[in-house]
Amino acid sequence: VAKRIGRRPGASGTREQIAEVARRQFADFGYARTTYRGIAREAEVDPALVQHFFGTKNQLFVAVVTLPFDPAAVMPALLGGDPAELGERFVGFVLSMLEQPVAREVLTGLVRAAVTEPEAAVMVRDLITRQVFAPMVDALGMDDAPLRASMLGAQVVGLVMARYVVAVEPLASAGPEQISAALAPVFQRLLAEPLH
Amino acid sequence: VAKRIGRRPGASGTREQIAEVARRQFADFGYARTTYRGIAREAEVDPALVQHFFGTKNQLFVAVVTLPFDPAAVMPALLGGDPAELGERFVGFVLSMLEQPVAREVLTGLVRAAVTEPEAAVMVRDLITRQVFAPMVDALGMDDAPLRASMLGAQVVGLVMARYVVAVEPLASAGPEQISAALAPVFQRLLAEPLH
Repeated sequence: VAKRIGRRPGASGTREQIAEVARRQFADFGYARTTYRGIAREAEVDPALVQHFFGTKNQLFVAVVTLPFDPAAVMPALLGGDPAELGERFVGFVLSMLEQPVAREVLTGLVRAAVTEPEAAVMVRDLITRQVFAPMVDALGMDDAPLRASMLGAQVVGLVMARYVVAVEPLASAGPEQISAALAPVFQRLLAEPLH
Repeated sequence: VAKRIGRRPGASGTREQIAEVARRQFADFGYARTTYRGIAREAEVDPALVQHFFGTKNQLFVAVVTLPFDPAAVMPALLGGDPAELGERFVGFVLSMLEQPVAREVLTGLVRAAVTEPEAAVMVRDLITRQVFAPMVDALGMDDAPLRASMLGAQVVGLVMARYVVAVEPLASAGPEQISAALAPVFQRLLAEPLH
């Protein structure tokens, strides 16, 4: 009842309310099964209003997506421990994220969206050059840190594309242990060995 | 004059004529600068007819694209020579393709299209599992050949995505020698060294 007595939310309140519902639905259902209609129904607005505020579904996704992990929180565990196993820990973390349906949907959605939405490409670049890869390589004090960070980014983007988007076999159905065994030395080299 | 006297080409003749023009324009101008209007003008048809036959520009691209190299022709040179330099030759070949504007446009266009067009995803899978990567790894007689082939595919798709689609720096503007030095050992391992 209080809801009805209070002032109707302004445009920005409605927009934020739609964004919250969309963020949760993308996380719960994944990109493919999240619909304008479903978001509009839960946010109690007309689907046209969702489109009015956010544009295409891809644009809506980019506007509301949040990283499925906190880089500052995972960094110490990845960087600590045996330096010879940096690559193994790092690729293990990437694979553990991709094994979780929600995190996989977010990361795959981001890579897909980067192809068509400039804002998503900026987000992916930012993840690589600011939030995750570059700070890690910087913390290790290696030479060519920016090149290493961007090449680690290429590894993860390539894995996501080949395994989930293009779905090339047997990579698409290989177990994480098999992929980790094959990629750990690649990550180790890009993180902590001479590049040339 | 002979053209006017002869029978008008049927639908399939017109379709093939549009496809030929589109193939050449994509090759000459690249994906971004090729337009429906330009193709229709050169093929002397209405732009609506191009759309009628081929759908979206992405679908048209997938329908007419051809590989910028002949796998059977390049394979012997890549596989011959010092086995310790397989990775260097292979990544050098990939980078030499990507340095040519036309080949780069075709390969980048294919990777981009794979995200939205299932037919393009099939083409990329086919390139990896049949035309280029798998026959190469098979010829080397390594174990885990299909997994190696799909992981080499992930390397090339990741490089194309990170360097040209997401355009993450400094990978986007790095010289081919710098990228080759960093990736040759990765390709060498996936082609010819124990995977685990």
